Amino acid sequence: MEFSAKEIAQFLHGKVIGDENVRVSNLSKIEEGTPDSLTFLANPKYTPHIYTTCAGIVLVNKGFQPEGEIKATLIEVEDSYACLALLLNMVNQARPEKKGIEKNAHIAASAKLSESIYIGEFAYIDENVVLGEGCKIYPQAYIGENVKIGAGTIIYPGVKIYRDCVIGAHCIIHAGAVIGADGFGFAPHDGKYEKIAQIGNVLIEDDVEVGANTTIDRATMGSTVVHRGTKLDNLIQIAHNVEVGEHTVMAAQVGVAGSTKIGSHCMVGGQVGFAGHITVGDRSNFGAQSGIPNHVEAGSNLLGTPAIPAREFARTSVLMRKLPELNQTIRELQKEVAALKRQLSEETGKDNA
Amino acid sequence: MEFSAKEIAQFLHGKVIGDENVRVSNLSKIEEGTPDSLTFLANPKYTPHIYTTCAGIVLVNKGFQPEGEIKATLIEVEDSYACLALLLNMVNQARPEKKGIEKNAHIAASAKLSESIYIGEFAYIDENVVLGEGCKIYPQAYIGENVKIGAGTIIYPGVKIYRDCVIGAHCIIHAGAVIGADGFGFAPHDGKYEKIAQIGNVLIEDDVEVGANTTIDRATMGSTVVHRGTKLDNLIQIAHNVEVGEHTVMAAQVGVAGSTKIGSHCMVGGQVGFAGHITVGDRSNFGAQSGIPNHVEAGSNLLGTPAIPAREFARTSVLMRKLPELNQTIRELQKEVAALKRQLSEETGKDNA
Amino acid sequence: MEFSAKEIAQFLHGKVIGDENVRVSNLSKIEEGTPDSLTFLANPKYTPHIYTTCAGIVLVNKGFQPEGEIKATLIEVEDSYACLALLLNMVNQARPEKKGIEKNAHIAASAKLSESIYIGEFAYIDENVVLGEGCKIYPQAYIGENVKIGAGTIIYPGVKIYRDCVIGAHCIIHAGAVIGADGFGFAPHDGKYEKIAQIGNVLIEDDVEVGANTTIDRATMGSTVVHRGTKLDNLIQIAHNVEVGEHTVMAAQVGVAGSTKIGSHCMVGGQVGFAGHITVGDRSNFGAQSGIPNHVEAGSNLLGTPAIPAREFARTSVLMRKLPELNQTIRELQKEVAALKRQLSEETGKDNA
Repeated sequence: MEFSAKEIAQFLHGKVIGDENVRVSNLSKIEEGTPDSLTFLANPKYTPHIYTTCAGIVLVNKGFQPEGEIKATLIEVEDSYACLALLLNMVNQARPEKKGIEKNAHIAASAKLSESIYIGEFAYIDENVVLGEGCKIYPQAYIGENVKIGAGTIIYPGVKIYRDCVIGAHCIIHAGAVIGADGFGFAPHDGKYEKIAQIGNVLIEDDVEVGANTTIDRATMGSTVVHRGTKLDNLIQIAHNVEVGEHTVMAAQVGVAGSTKIGSHCMVGGQVGFAGHITVGDRSNFGAQSGIPNHVEAGSNLLGTPAIPAREFARTSVLMRKLPELNQTIRELQKEVAALKRQLSEETGKDNA
Repeated sequence: MEFSAKEIAQFLHGKVIGDENVRVSNLSKIEEGTPDSLTFLANPKYTPHIYTTCAGIVLVNKGFQPEGEIKATLIEVEDSYACLALLLNMVNQARPEKKGIEKNAHIAASAKLSESIYIGEFAYIDENVVLGEGCKIYPQAYIGENVKIGAGTIIYPGVKIYRDCVIGAHCIIHAGAVIGADGFGFAPHDGKYEKIAQIGNVLIEDDVEVGANTTIDRATMGSTVVHRGTKLDNLIQIAHNVEVGEHTVMAAQVGVAGSTKIGSHCMVGGQVGFAGHITVGDRSNFGAQSGIPNHVEAGSNLLGTPAIPAREFARTSVLMRKLPELNQTIRELQKEVAALKRQLSEETGKDNA
Repeated sequence: MEFSAKEIAQFLHGKVIGDENVRVSNLSKIEEGTPDSLTFLANPKYTPHIYTTCAGIVLVNKGFQPEGEIKATLIEVEDSYACLALLLNMVNQARPEKKGIEKNAHIAASAKLSESIYIGEFAYIDENVVLGEGCKIYPQAYIGENVKIGAGTIIYPGVKIYRDCVIGAHCIIHAGAVIGADGFGFAPHDGKYEKIAQIGNVLIEDDVEVGANTTIDRATMGSTVVHRGTKLDNLIQIAHNVEVGEHTVMAAQVGVAGSTKIGSHCMVGGQVGFAGHITVGDRSNFGAQSGIPNHVEAGSNLLGTPAIPAREFARTSVLMRKLPELNQTIRELQKEVAALKRQLSEETGKDNA
């Protein structure tokens, strides 16, 4: 598909500056622009690229004032990043959709399939599974007994969902994710570990995205819950009986230990670890690689292991690097104080002489 | 299935306090109890819930003294958590078992299958594989050439076991785990890396559990070994030629680098990392996110990166947060000492005057 | 296959010391040697084992001087480890190769297959896929629309490659790896997160190895790139729009956040995390578990979170453990200085008296 600057500006309610007949057929980053691509400028850090980009069209925010010559046609919009997101979405949706049931999918007789679904080859749909309208189950996915999946949800290739789990509507589960494996529950007994059966399930609400190879364990009893709108990146571990609140985002490789409750609207950096059986308040932020051993109040902004307020961490880190210097200063002070003591004792001796 | 308090008390050798005819059909956490559910009280932290729970029956430890009214029927037992584990196990085993060989499984002609096994659709059983009695191979699992799997072992969907690996009896390998991929062995040569072929295997002994998406690499030569009774959580990395002792437990996202030997009866917290070529003594404990660069003596209890004794870590962490204050104190001491020196030198001058 | 010491020495251009007719049929570690195995001595740490090994043959470096009796036949070579690597490779290549297209593979009509390829059962090859000569696609792998895979590349069981990605020649992608899942891109809006469509791809150049269950996300626009010769271990996360330079090695569980550029010839320890939007210079080294928040100059050698020069980290770690002692010293200095002040003030008082 190809569109002119004029057509795009109309669609985005923007204003063309330059040649409105320039035509583009794809999207690019500003530093990788080609004459047939549209790009955008949102982050001021990238402004220098606008004077050198080969892109045919650049979306800019209203009020952008060029400080040099620009080859590209500009389209002024309210929010260039939001407009780009809109265009990305359009391009994505223009791709042909997978539909229908491929011939070697395994579908149990008791499974209930809705309209307009896709089930790929070598997918395994077990007994009593319920698939909502417009679900897409890609090849080689495994949907265990009694699993329910809501409307419009996409299950990418090779996802494994163990029996009894419930996935909401409009979720996206990326390839290799494992939902509902046994929680890590063992009782020590005579120097061995005896398995505690894990009879609960996983409950994922609507509009959740789960990254590739992320694992969410089933509850011992009850449910491990991920509330609506939450987005989990790749290779995350969510242990049994954890609850993650609404609209929380977690970057890759985060680990949440058993029975912990994470609030809503939290932001969790990559490789963060949460201890088990703790409660984390809403709207908390955690810097990458933090370790959270205890309860966290709502609205906290923590960093480090064990995590402390992020500002404090910054100060402490600087001082840690100064430890050799501080150590030196202390040694010198010791010498000076000793010298002062000697001197004073001599003075006093003299006085008394 | 539904049971009365009387029946359950008989089975658990417990004593009913309250209505012995109350009937329950499932298990629940104490804070999520419903009239048809049985729950338990083991951790005193949860005691307040017993006065408000809606559960029909609560298992309590002998000697529990209520301090208020309780609606539920109580069953007094020796160890309420152990009794719960027993009931969880019963519920789990009451579920129908997978049996037989589904029609689209791929089974090589030379594979040796025992009695009472299950092989799911789209599973791939390669040449010379040996499956012990009662093995369950779920759909989409891959069992490479010459792999041997012991009796009663469960291989969940999508597990990949490379050629020549050996899995013991009564193991559980969760979905997405990869056993026997090549160890990360490369020889630097002329600014490039040349692959060192990895011709060893992985040997997993009896009663081992391997979590979802965990990876255990094959040895360069010989075997990467996980000894019996050891339990590995999800997303763990066990590198080539590692040996993990008996009855050791590792929480999620732990990494063990090449050729390291971990002792038996160790407890390893989440996200811990072990350097390569080190030896870790038996019965050692490691707090979450620790980094272990060197050999560790048996019975150690370590925390931090680099890991130090856990008690020491606690003291050090407190002092790290006090670094700004310590720094301030040092600066003040410097000023005071300088003042003292000046003063003393003036005094001495006066004396000498 | 069985070879004599004489034959092996000829092949490796080495010199036999001892019985040249000893025959071996496999390779072993020196501490696990058996009479029918060949082993090697490269690392001096393992020298004591040469006097006790039961191996039939030991490769040693020219100039090795025994300090006791050795039962094994020795073969003196220029570089015993390189010779071992050669033998490992021979053993590996002697294994029968997988060939042909198994009958239940799904291959779209428009896919272009070259000569001498292997496609295993339950593999899914989607429309317009191009597979180079000698490619091996193991069972249950998923190759999405338009994916191109170069000659000689091995895709192990259960690998998932999303649409439009490009994999070079002579690459190895281990089981469970996910290439091209959506980047983690969301725009906050009204307390919710809206998905930013990810329309780019992943581009992996020649001679790259990707470990088991590693995830490499597709770019928002353009490509996430792994340059030639780079080796990624297991369970690594490479986020969208990341670029990893040539001949870089990353140990397991490393995470690289979005849009970061890692240089060539870098060495990255296990569990290291890189922040997003940073640039890391060539030939940099990072110790295990480091956290890299900012740009890194070429040739750096960093450790810790936030990462600092490795030598400095060592000094700082030592001093951190001395914090209780330093704290004590400071408290004592405070007391001594206070005492000095008092004493001096008394002296001065006396003087003035």
